[in-house]
Amino acid sequence: MKLPPDTVDRLLDRWQVARLATIGPLGPHIVPVVFARVADVLWSPVDGKPKRGGQLTRVRNVLSQPRATLLIDRWDADWSRLWWLRVDVVAEVVTGSGSNLRADAIAAVLALETKYPQYRQTPVLGDPPTLLRLQIDSTQSWCASAAAIASIESSADSA
Amino acid sequence: MKLPPDTVDRLLDRWQVARLATIGPLGPHIVPVVFARVADVLWSPVDGKPKRGGQLTRVRNVLSQPRATLLIDRWDADWSRLWWLRVDVVAEVVTGSGSNLRADAIAAVLALETKYPQYRQTPVLGDPPTLLRLQIDSTQSWCASAAAIASIESSADSA
Repeated sequence: MKLPPDTVDRLLDRWQVARLATIGPLGPHIVPVVFARVADVLWSPVDGKPKRGGQLTRVRNVLSQPRATLLIDRWDADWSRLWWLRVDVVAEVVTGSGSNLRADAIAAVLALETKYPQYRQTPVLGDPPTLLRLQIDSTQSWCASAAAIASIESSADSA
Repeated sequence: MKLPPDTVDRLLDRWQVARLATIGPLGPHIVPVVFARVADVLWSPVDGKPKRGGQLTRVRNVLSQPRATLLIDRWDADWSRLWWLRVDVVAEVVTGSGSNLRADAIAAVLALETKYPQYRQTPVLGDPPTLLRLQIDSTQSWCASAAAIASIESSADSA
């Protein structure tokens, strides 16, 4: 059973976290990411949250293999409420700061600041300023039941 | 900041959900999975939970590219409590039913039944009976702060 289109839209607009998979030289890589949608593009910053040294693996990976995938889902101990949304994307690395940042990337930073109040304390852009521009190629979804869809509606801005 | 080894052990033993990334012909693939640990191997069943038609993508993928990655993490709106554990694995597809199932796979089914009370209602093995045997190759972890570790300790059997 698929998720209805309006539920997919709500998830892409409002869900707080996704897991991003990319392909590296030794195998797949996954990392939790924040994201914001602007039109049909998702943007995920390499933001000012503290990170370990290897934080740029996702960036290196998409530079050599731009096909990536996002998963949005939520665990529930009641398996009749399980669901997931997978978003296949083509990723592009966008860098630059201040007046050197592309117009669409500036809009993305604003969208991220609007979506995440946490960015009042944390800079949206890390050093170096880097965003992943994730062009949506296709989406796939699954849910166990109508109860799963209802559980999304009651929590679509959390995770 | 890394997670302490005993926290990693608790997560591998008790955390309820992981996201599994594999590599397919067109790019990476991710799906939420349940898993249980037996010694240094994680087992994830293609179980009796309802699934959409494409459920065997993960199986097809690891048959041609056995390197896969699991991510265990939990979203928190308080970013000082964020953490993740990534487990690079070499995956093997194990099939068979009844007396044809390998001894280590029988132990895995028991471990899954013990870990997940949901399996009192849902068969551990789907049709065809299939498990992914995920040999742990390496783990990497990150946490934002000591508060993140404390948040795991207070919820290590949930997600």
